[in-house]
Amino acid sequence: MANAHKYVYLFSEGNGSMKELLGGKGANLAEMSNLGMPVPQGFTVSTEACTQYYNDGRAINADIQAEIMEYLTKLEEITGKKFGDPKNPLLVSVRSGARASMPGMMDTILNLGLNDTVVEGFAEITNNPRFAYDSYRRFIQMFSDVVMELSKKRFEEIIDAKKAERGIKLDTEMTTEDLKDLVIRFKKFYKDEKGVDFPTDPKTQLMEAVKAVFRSWDNPRANVYRRMNEIPYDWGTAVNVQSMVFGNSGDNSGTGVAFTRNPATGEKALFGEYLINAQGEDVVAGVRTPSPISKLHEEMPEVYDQFAAIATKLEQHYKDMQDMEFTIENGKLYMLQTRNGKRTAAAALKVAVDLVDEGMISEKEAVLRVEPKQLDSLLHPQFDPAALKKAEVIGKGLAASPGAACGKVVFTAEDAKAWHERGEKVVLVRLETSPEDIEGMQVAQGILTVRGGMTSHAAVVARGMGTCCVSGCGDIVVDYAAKKFSLSGKDYHEGDFISIDGSTGNIYGEAIATVPADVGSGDFGRLMAWADEYRQLEVYTNADTPKDAAQGRSFGAQGIGLCRTEHMFFEGERIKAMREMIVADNVDDRKKALAKIMPYQQGDFEGLYEAMEGHPVVIRFLDPPLHEFLPTKEEDIKEIAGEIGVTVEKLKNVIESLHEFNPMMGHRGCRLAVSYPEIAEMQTTAVINAAIAVTKRGRYSIEPNIMIPLVGEVKELKYVKDVVTATADKIIAESGVSMKYQVGTMIEIPRAALTADEIAKEAEFFSFGTNDLTQMTFGFSRDDAGKFLDYYYEKKIYESDPFAHLDQTGVGKLVEMAVTLGRKTRPEIHLGICGEHGGDPSSVEFCHKVGLDYVSCSPFRVPIARLAAAQAAIKNPR
Amino acid sequence: MANAHKYVYLFSEGNGSMKELLGGKGANLAEMSNLGMPVPQGFTVSTEACTQYYNDGRAINADIQAEIMEYLTKLEEITGKKFGDPKNPLLVSVRSGARASMPGMMDTILNLGLNDTVVEGFAEITNNPRFAYDSYRRFIQMFSDVVMELSKKRFEEIIDAKKAERGIKLDTEMTTEDLKDLVIRFKKFYKDEKGVDFPTDPKTQLMEAVKAVFRSWDNPRANVYRRMNEIPYDWGTAVNVQSMVFGNSGDNSGTGVAFTRNPATGEKALFGEYLINAQGEDVVAGVRTPSPISKLHEEMPEVYDQFAAIATKLEQHYKDMQDMEFTIENGKLYMLQTRNGKRTAAAALKVAVDLVDEGMISEKEAVLRVEPKQLDSLLHPQFDPAALKKAEVIGKGLAASPGAACGKVVFTAEDAKAWHERGEKVVLVRLETSPEDIEGMQVAQGILTVRGGMTSHAAVVARGMGTCCVSGCGDIVVDYAAKKFSLSGKDYHEGDFISIDGSTGNIYGEAIATVPADVGSGDFGRLMAWADEYRQLEVYTNADTPKDAAQGRSFGAQGIGLCRTEHMFFEGERIKAMREMIVADNVDDRKKALAKIMPYQQGDFEGLYEAMEGHPVVIRFLDPPLHEFLPTKEEDIKEIAGEIGVTVEKLKNVIESLHEFNPMMGHRGCRLAVSYPEIAEMQTTAVINAAIAVTKRGRYSIEPNIMIPLVGEVKELKYVKDVVTATADKIIAESGVSMKYQVGTMIEIPRAALTADEIAKEAEFFSFGTNDLTQMTFGFSRDDAGKFLDYYYEKKIYESDPFAHLDQTGVGKLVEMAVTLGRKTRPEIHLGICGEHGGDPSSVEFCHKVGLDYVSCSPFRVPIARLAAAQAAIKNPR
Repeated sequence: MANAHKYVYLFSEGNGSMKELLGGKGANLAEMSNLGMPVPQGFTVSTEACTQYYNDGRAINADIQAEIMEYLTKLEEITGKKFGDPKNPLLVSVRSGARASMPGMMDTILNLGLNDTVVEGFAEITNNPRFAYDSYRRFIQMFSDVVMELSKKRFEEIIDAKKAERGIKLDTEMTTEDLKDLVIRFKKFYKDEKGVDFPTDPKTQLMEAVKAVFRSWDNPRANVYRRMNEIPYDWGTAVNVQSMVFGNSGDNSGTGVAFTRNPATGEKALFGEYLINAQGEDVVAGVRTPSPISKLHEEMPEVYDQFAAIATKLEQHYKDMQDMEFTIENGKLYMLQTRNGKRTAAAALKVAVDLVDEGMISEKEAVLRVEPKQLDSLLHPQFDPAALKKAEVIGKGLAASPGAACGKVVFTAEDAKAWHERGEKVVLVRLETSPEDIEGMQVAQGILTVRGGMTSHAAVVARGMGTCCVSGCGDIVVDYAAKKFSLSGKDYHEGDFISIDGSTGNIYGEAIATVPADVGSGDFGRLMAWADEYRQLEVYTNADTPKDAAQGRSFGAQGIGLCRTEHMFFEGERIKAMREMIVADNVDDRKKALAKIMPYQQGDFEGLYEAMEGHPVVIRFLDPPLHEFLPTKEEDIKEIAGEIGVTVEKLKNVIESLHEFNPMMGHRGCRLAVSYPEIAEMQTTAVINAAIAVTKRGRYSIEPNIMIPLVGEVKELKYVKDVVTATADKIIAESGVSMKYQVGTMIEIPRAALTADEIAKEAEFFSFGTNDLTQMTFGFSRDDAGKFLDYYYEKKIYESDPFAHLDQTGVGKLVEMAVTLGRKTRPEIHLGICGEHGGDPSSVEFCHKVGLDYVSCSPFRVPIARLAAAQAAIKNPR
Repeated sequence: MANAHKYVYLFSEGNGSMKELLGGKGANLAEMSNLGMPVPQGFTVSTEACTQYYNDGRAINADIQAEIMEYLTKLEEITGKKFGDPKNPLLVSVRSGARASMPGMMDTILNLGLNDTVVEGFAEITNNPRFAYDSYRRFIQMFSDVVMELSKKRFEEIIDAKKAERGIKLDTEMTTEDLKDLVIRFKKFYKDEKGVDFPTDPKTQLMEAVKAVFRSWDNPRANVYRRMNEIPYDWGTAVNVQSMVFGNSGDNSGTGVAFTRNPATGEKALFGEYLINAQGEDVVAGVRTPSPISKLHEEMPEVYDQFAAIATKLEQHYKDMQDMEFTIENGKLYMLQTRNGKRTAAAALKVAVDLVDEGMISEKEAVLRVEPKQLDSLLHPQFDPAALKKAEVIGKGLAASPGAACGKVVFTAEDAKAWHERGEKVVLVRLETSPEDIEGMQVAQGILTVRGGMTSHAAVVARGMGTCCVSGCGDIVVDYAAKKFSLSGKDYHEGDFISIDGSTGNIYGEAIATVPADVGSGDFGRLMAWADEYRQLEVYTNADTPKDAAQGRSFGAQGIGLCRTEHMFFEGERIKAMREMIVADNVDDRKKALAKIMPYQQGDFEGLYEAMEGHPVVIRFLDPPLHEFLPTKEEDIKEIAGEIGVTVEKLKNVIESLHEFNPMMGHRGCRLAVSYPEIAEMQTTAVINAAIAVTKRGRYSIEPNIMIPLVGEVKELKYVKDVVTATADKIIAESGVSMKYQVGTMIEIPRAALTADEIAKEAEFFSFGTNDLTQMTFGFSRDDAGKFLDYYYEKKIYESDPFAHLDQTGVGKLVEMAVTLGRKTRPEIHLGICGEHGGDPSSVEFCHKVGLDYVSCSPFRVPIARLAAAQAAIKNPR
């Protein structure tokens, strides 16, 4: 074995810093062992062995097998027991342990090493045959389930049959003979199913168990968990082989889990529970009710004190709240695991702040202790936990926009508005939403759609507004005509109460009380203040309305990075004028229609400037293709033709002429301004007029930022910019106000990134529109990718949604190029991002690393971005 | 004026190499002047002055005006005449002259310097008052038209009125008095229209004329010409101010144009025509019929000999066929212009080859002398010129695919096939074509569509097949039900003869005889052989059928660079099996349907291998979205549901489920193979089976190349490649044949180019799919861009269609990156291009420069690509 790669480590060979190699559990077992804590000894098969297993076509090669056997021998020496020796048997547990904690995602086998002869010796040694046979039948069950993939349920059926024969109800009523019989029945079932005998050689059992853990790395629930938590597939898991201790060996034994602080609230007190005479799986199974950890103080005061001391020591050692597993065997305490405990957002804040106050960690460390994504749950209303417990889930969609909503069902945006106006709270239920629904969405408590993914219109708009949304619940059958929907066999009519949870995707067919968000708390404020000290990225918000702007400001936004002006065209009279503009045959008629819209836009911009109190406001000019403003349904076409005074035929012709094969890549963005410069003139007029009006009021001096979308070529930008500056300069000169303004562009077309040095000659700022940039760079449409991306996840081609997490390899390369090229031409150029990625922590870290000046995200993601930016700055000093 | 930038040059200050600064005409006038030839003296205002004019907001600044006046004074000194001096007036012509010849695209003013007093002196000096006043009225007309943009027609009307009053018919019948009266009437008309008097100051006239020439650089016909000929807008034009000589000063004077060789055939003999007692415009106007140049030999033998000697000297000097303008004033010859003459493709070939044979140029130079695009006209049938002259154009569409076609009108692909089978020649007339029409298109002589641009389905497919196509003739009204169309007020029924010209877009309502292409000629063969010696790029063809493959081979293709397998799925039984595959609910049913297609595919591939005689064949796997194989019309859906044995509802559901918002960026390309690996398995089986079958026949040893489309990520490629290799290796092993094969990928998604180092780990070759790459890089869809690109051309944002000429700035940057990155990983990687750009000369030059190994284009572009590749290699030695 000399010179061979080392794949196996005794606990005594490892330490807490070796998580990559040994996994979290293995490293921490080694660390506790080094700290002199009572840890049952064992060894860890490294994550590299897992990678090798997959490279070898899902097989453990001979070298690694030999090394495992070598370490098994070492473990026998350490414990003084022998594997497969009935007189003094070594029994082990085999547990997975990945680099990042993946609770419950992978598999565990206990009591490994038992067979028909060993169990007899074990019964003798423990002087407890019932315990020995109970352990044995548990092992057969677990091994068959976990390693051999036989159905757990079938074993339960065999147990139930046995109990029925014996006329008993509880497991504990079974005698040793019953258990022995169960072992026989289990093994027979195994042979019937598998065609071979249950493996009696403990070494075979061990190797199969190690393989099973490796295999479990690739099981579906592990894959889903990894995707949700951005854990790379290629990390692999380690396997911990540890000598068994038995919490189920009598009333002086037990097993439990505990946290050093309350994981729900963060309160500093030992928190947990335990069961006497039980193995870990009993705690999980929930058949018996565990006792709170405080009771251990009464039942086994010495053990409790020892455990409490260890807990304190571990917390001080790791400088973080610990989540520990322990077992008591015949009055002796063993530590089976410690790790930094998962906690709620509120607890995370409190623990971080308390640890600073206790002098354990610095403010900088505290900033790193809170998961930015977690903050989200603090910013939205939640269901009252008590009320929620009693509620029944009637369906499930995608958790598209977090928060909880309760209201009466309505089916149209108009109804939502009407009901809202008479004081009702509503949940808007739609097949899917479209831009015309925007007003209804704004007043709804929540939005529920039948179709559409995490990036559907409903989802994106709802997240932007901070409104709860569950999307894509395909089980719902909507009957718009009858104003009802059916789900899980029941009908829900307009006016019926439902509740939806945008953080879980759950749908409830009843009213559930909600409790408001609490972001004013001291811990939140203190931690965010520390974060703001460390971060170098500015954080802006995407906001189209004064309400959104104010929301963003309240969460700490330093400006508006993206105001989408098209949303302003959908309300009331505006949409009418917009439609008149679209059907106009000539420039004059277009200008007339635009002139009607101008005062509304100006008013909107004034509102935004006021709401932002002098902070920057980046206004993006009209972006979507014009057909989005026109009706599609026959009856709407008729009605609207009348409204705007054209024939139905004319309106239909316009709609037909605006049809596009690939609207995403069609006549939109600045292409509209190139075709119809009068649109840019009108928008410039509104922006500048608004800025002058607000500046004249004297409280703030406004410096407008105008952003031209979808630019791919510098001449295109220059053409539109020339329209903007000619218009703006004239108005400013006439106003007598001295006012500067900036014209910049979105970088959202690959060609813009590739030619950013040219673009920067005209653009005074860049804002990366990474939604479109991702679409163009990958060549897939966000609306259509849902149909095939699942195959890509399943086949591990992509591990995360590139629309949720910025693809640093491809899209990121374009961003980096554009940053470098842009700064080369214009060193002082202001660089930011305004795609959905602006609120995603890993993407924010990327933005920090490539040297952007700011990120902009929806209001409810501002705190997340602030914290993520601080963590990025701490981890990656510029 | 010291240190100031020099904008004006005497002819004596320039030479033939200064075309960039002086334009072609100015440089050649200088050169002829230097050669001691009789050139009326003058000066050139440089192209830089034109650029400055546009930079100064379309104004000639004071410095340049002063410099022009300074050179006017020098010209006065040289000629001994004086501008505006009635006693000895200097008269000048003002002509444009751009870097590249743009015949007739810009404007000219003759006889400038005349006014009411100068004309009298001029009459006296020439002793020819009629000539003087004729010159004056011509000047007023030209100046008013060209400089002041008054309608030419209105002046003609005034002349006609005068002639009517006088009861005469011919211009020559007008007396001096008539002409004097015309001058008065012209000036009155001018004042009525312009509100000011006609400018009498010759210096004002001159400056306005120079401005007009600069302005004419931006007139619509110049812009269109430039876009067609890839001449950059920022080059600008020079202006030549030259002292007038008068071909219209009597019967001892004249003017003419001549070529040193016949521009239609290339025959070596002076070729041209002249008019006695005329100015240049008379030749152009076509009122009088000019005499052939040979007649000058009789009329003015000395002048003729002098001219012939000069012509010979110029040809030898420039080493190319010259196109010359000359004027004879009172028996004295003056040269007004020489340039390399425009010529037909046939003439270009003959001249180039003859010049080599005459020892004037090398073979290498000859290769540079033929415009690759010109070859196209030699490769297709053409109308018999005699028959064409008598034919009447009834409409005009886009010249979508070159060649001439004559046949009977049919309106469906089925009819085209049926008529063809009974021996009729047909022209297929459709609103637009779709993939289902492919068989009908294949048998038609030509294709005529009402909708669709240069890159519509009809245009692209027709060009690929080398079939004549006129697309987008919006004036046609088709009545499918009645099987007729109407155009220019007449109806054409099924079976009526029409003819279409795919090189001009003309449509004729009658049969016109065609003559076949003649590519076997010696000149063509010799020149192409020289080209093949110099080029470093291999030239492949895109071909889906043995017929196309043979066509490509006959034009010199060295392999197939793109075989689109989807075209093979549309015929007969195949489309049925394809549809069964698409509606299948599970893998087994899909495999069953695919198994039906496999033998057809195998047969197709065998045909291709045989046709290519062992040369490489790159087969691209299924690319288009599946909905393209399904019907859209209600009645088709019903029929096809029956055919494939599913309910109408089921088929509709499938169609609905395949609907995409942006199909270009949807579920297509290798995404299909990731979702349904059984498709890739079937295609691999067909490719390998075919290769084995052909290899076993013993004539060629086939090494298949499999190309995976639309790859954006290496893991995606690896997944599909693993399917391919598992399938292929098994078949090969079982066959007992020893066979290598390669798996490569298209680079057509920006992300693939950005991560080409990773992709190259799996890809054994890259083929740049620059159609899609252009779409994604620009972010616009080829099908939709037509709607807004005209605005972009109009506003000079883009000067050429990026789908016709590869965008070297943006798309080219991605190609270069991918070349560099790909070679870094795999130095021997084979690199090519298979987009439409593969047959475009400027794009081919780019491919050479970035170091690709091959280009692939439609069969009829193969000779163009060969020549372009040779020219690229000569101009850019690697």
